[in-house]
Amino acid sequence: MPNPELLEVFATPAEQAFVIEHTSTEFTSLCPKTGHPDFGDVILRYQPASASRGGVCVELKSLKLYYQSFRDEGIFYEAVTNQIRDDLSTLLKPEWLQIETHWRGRGGIRSIIRADAGDVPAHYRGR
Amino acid sequence: MPNPELLEVFATPAEQAFVIEHTSTEFTSLCPKTGHPDFGDVILRYQPASASRGGVCVELKSLKLYYQSFRDEGIFYEAVTNQIRDDLSTLLKPEWLQIETHWRGRGGIRSIIRADAGDVPAHYRGR
Amino acid sequence: MPNPELLEVFATPAEQAFVIEHTSTEFTSLCPKTGHPDFGDVILRYQPASASRGGVCVELKSLKLYYQSFRDEGIFYEAVTNQIRDDLSTLLKPEWLQIETHWRGRGGIRSIIRADAGDVPAHYRGR
Amino acid sequence: MPNPELLEVFATPAEQAFVIEHTSTEFTSLCPKTGHPDFGDVILRYQPASASRGGVCVELKSLKLYYQSFRDEGIFYEAVTNQIRDDLSTLLKPEWLQIETHWRGRGGIRSIIRADAGDVPAHYRGR
Amino acid sequence: MPNPELLEVFATPAEQAFVIEHTSTEFTSLCPKTGHPDFGDVILRYQPASASRGGVCVELKSLKLYYQSFRDEGIFYEAVTNQIRDDLSTLLKPEWLQIETHWRGRGGIRSIIRADAGDVPAHYRGR
Amino acid sequence: MPNPELLEVFATPAEQAFVIEHTSTEFTSLCPKTGHPDFGDVILRYQPASASRGGVCVELKSLKLYYQSFRDEGIFYEAVTNQIRDDLSTLLKPEWLQIETHWRGRGGIRSIIRADAGDVPAHYRGR
Amino acid sequence: MPNPELLEVFATPAEQAFVIEHTSTEFTSLCPKTGHPDFGDVILRYQPASASRGGVCVELKSLKLYYQSFRDEGIFYEAVTNQIRDDLSTLLKPEWLQIETHWRGRGGIRSIIRADAGDVPAHYRGR
Amino acid sequence: MPNPELLEVFATPAEQAFVIEHTSTEFTSLCPKTGHPDFGDVILRYQPASASRGGVCVELKSLKLYYQSFRDEGIFYEAVTNQIRDDLSTLLKPEWLQIETHWRGRGGIRSIIRADAGDVPAHYRGR
Amino acid sequence: MPNPELLEVFATPAEQAFVIEHTSTEFTSLCPKTGHPDFGDVILRYQPASASRGGVCVELKSLKLYYQSFRDEGIFYEAVTNQIRDDLSTLLKPEWLQIETHWRGRGGIRSIIRADAGDVPAHYRGR
Amino acid sequence: MPNPELLEVFATPAEQAFVIEHTSTEFTSLCPKTGHPDFGDVILRYQPASASRGGVCVELKSLKLYYQSFRDEGIFYEAVTNQIRDDLSTLLKPEWLQIETHWRGRGGIRSIIRADAGDVPAHYRGR
Repeated sequence: MPNPELLEVFATPAEQAFVIEHTSTEFTSLCPKTGHPDFGDVILRYQPASASRGGVCVELKSLKLYYQSFRDEGIFYEAVTNQIRDDLSTLLKPEWLQIETHWRGRGGIRSIIRADAGDVPAHYRGR
Repeated sequence: MPNPELLEVFATPAEQAFVIEHTSTEFTSLCPKTGHPDFGDVILRYQPASASRGGVCVELKSLKLYYQSFRDEGIFYEAVTNQIRDDLSTLLKPEWLQIETHWRGRGGIRSIIRADAGDVPAHYRGR
Repeated sequence: MPNPELLEVFATPAEQAFVIEHTSTEFTSLCPKTGHPDFGDVILRYQPASASRGGVCVELKSLKLYYQSFRDEGIFYEAVTNQIRDDLSTLLKPEWLQIETHWRGRGGIRSIIRADAGDVPAHYRGR
Repeated sequence: MPNPELLEVFATPAEQAFVIEHTSTEFTSLCPKTGHPDFGDVILRYQPASASRGGVCVELKSLKLYYQSFRDEGIFYEAVTNQIRDDLSTLLKPEWLQIETHWRGRGGIRSIIRADAGDVPAHYRGR
Repeated sequence: MPNPELLEVFATPAEQAFVIEHTSTEFTSLCPKTGHPDFGDVILRYQPASASRGGVCVELKSLKLYYQSFRDEGIFYEAVTNQIRDDLSTLLKPEWLQIETHWRGRGGIRSIIRADAGDVPAHYRGR
Repeated sequence: MPNPELLEVFATPAEQAFVIEHTSTEFTSLCPKTGHPDFGDVILRYQPASASRGGVCVELKSLKLYYQSFRDEGIFYEAVTNQIRDDLSTLLKPEWLQIETHWRGRGGIRSIIRADAGDVPAHYRGR
Repeated sequence: MPNPELLEVFATPAEQAFVIEHTSTEFTSLCPKTGHPDFGDVILRYQPASASRGGVCVELKSLKLYYQSFRDEGIFYEAVTNQIRDDLSTLLKPEWLQIETHWRGRGGIRSIIRADAGDVPAHYRGR
Repeated sequence: MPNPELLEVFATPAEQAFVIEHTSTEFTSLCPKTGHPDFGDVILRYQPASASRGGVCVELKSLKLYYQSFRDEGIFYEAVTNQIRDDLSTLLKPEWLQIETHWRGRGGIRSIIRADAGDVPAHYRGR
Repeated sequence: MPNPELLEVFATPAEQAFVIEHTSTEFTSLCPKTGHPDFGDVILRYQPASASRGGVCVELKSLKLYYQSFRDEGIFYEAVTNQIRDDLSTLLKPEWLQIETHWRGRGGIRSIIRADAGDVPAHYRGR
Repeated sequence: MPNPELLEVFATPAEQAFVIEHTSTEFTSLCPKTGHPDFGDVILRYQPASASRGGVCVELKSLKLYYQSFRDEGIFYEAVTNQIRDDLSTLLKPEWLQIETHWRGRGGIRSIIRADAGDVPAHYRGR
């Protein structure tokens, strides 16, 4: 089951603002209605808090393991997206954070879910 | 015939704003003039109301069945688009909602219909 | 000859604003100078008046027949574009309407003509 | 030699504003330095004056013959572009007019020249 | 060695503003550190001063010869770009002028240098 | 190990503002968690201080050697990006500077890190 | 109606074998069932008989007029293709001749018809 | 008028077989029926005779001037192609030679003409 | 001037057949007629003789220097291609070797020259 | 240094012939002349011997570690390619095996090396 305790952080290396984007193309979970596997991409974008404010970054291998912890979970697309947004926001306390999930087709329907935390700059919003 | 009672919802998993986009590439209905089948894509975009206001999301399999209920209906492109907009707006009471239908050519004419409900953000509008 | 009486309408299915776009890729008429056939695409975009104001939509098969009525007409590109704009504006009394015609090359020259009626939103204008 | 008297016009078919774009891909003239032929595309965009102000449109076959009249002329790219702009502005007295010439490479250099008359809308300007 | 005396001009053919763009894809000079040849594209954009102010245009063949005069020069990318900007600005006294150089990879690094003179319009700036 | 002493500079050739962009497609370092190699692109954009203020440019071959000095370093993506930003800002004292790193996939996750120094113009920001 | 008497020929300029290919992208005729217009491309390939055997080539403008003579004819795709093959074979008495027609979609079906006369070389056959 | 005396040759630099291909994208002549200009590409491929047999190659600038000598000639596509084949075969006495001309559209018809001399290898034949 | 003595070799590392392909995109020499620079790509493909027969490979940096030695040479495309073929065949005594040169346009003409030594496998021949 | 002892195998799961292709896009070694890093792709294709003949497959993680063992090795492209071919052929004793290495540009030259073992099927050979 989704396990945010798998996530590890390290201190941000910078006082100045910078932006991090991790795109996972190998996310899979289960449909809570049918039990069939869902496949998707998960895009995480965020600006860590600055070093003097104790800002942290998520460690990449732990992020991969955290994503893998959804593998046997029956969970809606919307809940996946919001849980990742919440788990990572709670952990990282970033300036802002954005999650986008792109789901490959099921039953002829493709889906995209977008969820933000904090004040995402305009040029990262929308289509 | 188009049957909105097929639609099911589940409680939105989030208090914060987020955006959902479902693209169906397998919509078919009948031309009310000729009885011939029409084929198109249906794009649904919406921001559910927040959890504290009782916001809900549409369940994906029920959305597919609802779309399938148009299969034997003789109905204009414009009416399909507005009915889907109305059925889903009534059901979901979202912050905003947008329907775009793209119809493959008939008689050498391709068509696109766009209908909104509520205040769609600028970056989701237009061409 | 161009015959707007071929056009049929049906009552708009919606009170709210929505946008309709029909792209015909099989338009042909005759050059009034040489009698040779011209070939082009015709794009029609419009927002019907709302239902409570008696808004109507153009029926697609009748639109095709109307376009076909130009087949034996000797007429300039500019006149085709404005006549379609005028015939459809008179018939539909829409909130706004836009006609774009794209003509395949003659004598090494390709042409595009754009004509609007009413207040076309900014994101549908220009190149 | 370039001969604007070849150009013919016809009365604009419309009172309302509309935009005309003619792209010729078969323009050729001679280099005034070397006598070698130059080859290019010529794009003409304009909004004719309204019918009540005596607005006119350029007839397409006459435009082709006018372009062909440069075939044996030794003339710089810049002068071609400005002469076409001037000849057509004088003839058409349009609301605005824009000429863009794209020249295929000579000596490893490709060139683009842009010249306007009147108040060209922002969405037709620039790169 | 780079020789601006190779450059020739001719009187601008126009009183009105217009824009000229010459793209050379065959520029080569030498690396001042290693002596190895560098290869790049040079894009020149400018608006000549108006005819009544004595505006001039650069003649294309002379521009080619001027670019060829860098062939045996050991010179940094940055200096090439600024020297061309300066030589052409001094010669042409244009309303504005812009030089962009794109260098093919050396040691796995590709480079782009951009230098302006005068007030370059916004739609010609940036990426 | 990362060695900014490898970096060499030369005096900027210009008083006016200009922009330099170097894209390296052959960056490699080691993952500090697993020891496995990471591969990425590094994009450096900056505007050197003007000549009268003692502005300098980074010499390209020395930049390549500096990037190569990360080859055997165990270091996070975020630290690579910020260290390059800091080393080059300290060395060049530019008007502004921007570093973007694009990392090829590891464990199905691709990453992009963006870090700025000074006031980067709007058209160089964002996606 | 289709009129092969519009076709004109001229004596082949060569004793040796050579191959001619004319592709018309502006063919239109009428569907014999519905009266609606059909639109397609017509590709003609042939090797004229040699000069000493009285070989002839089809003149291009007359070919255009011949194709235009189908404009008001109600005729199946298959019959169009075979009639063109027959009319041109009878006229030209070529070494071999090949007609390919590509029809734009009607009712969601695109069609290609191929008809040969004489011994078409292997590399012109098939898809 | 077409003038093969403009063509110059130089002795082939090789005893062994090799193949030369020159593609001109700036060919223009006149239609003998209408007097309007035609535009096309001319591809020349050949294998010169070996040095010991007195083989020669065509000089490139003279080839350009020879092609330019068709500029004011009223001549069919088929005759252009065969005349170039004949003029160059007579001049070069090559092992084999191939001419392909590709003509931009006139009256909605694009044309390709292919003519060979000698024994063209199979991999240079056909579509 | 072209200097094959710049070329260095090393013993082939293999007894078995293998194939080497080096594509240089930065070749430049001078036109012997006009003195203007020519620019092209040079593709070298070869199979070295086996180790037991004393087979050698060309060292890459020396190949680059050899190509650079043509920089100031006035020489025809055909001679460049054959000289490289001859110099490398003499040096390497390979099983077979193939040179292809692709020249950017001059006077609207692009050229490709192909020269082989020994028995080039069929799948490396032709277009 | 390159270490084939890192490679691990497992028994082929099949009696019938099948084909395996592994493409690594993150290969790096050092140039033996300059010490600078080289970057390339390595494609391995092979058909394992059948199960009854003791056929084995290479384990993927061990293949990655084996490739990484070249990271600090000064070695020519040709030797890399042949050593991988030899190490894997010795280990796997496959029906056939093929190595293709594609090297990113150095000094403006891109390289491809192809080495086979055993009887590679025709459709895997050549360009």
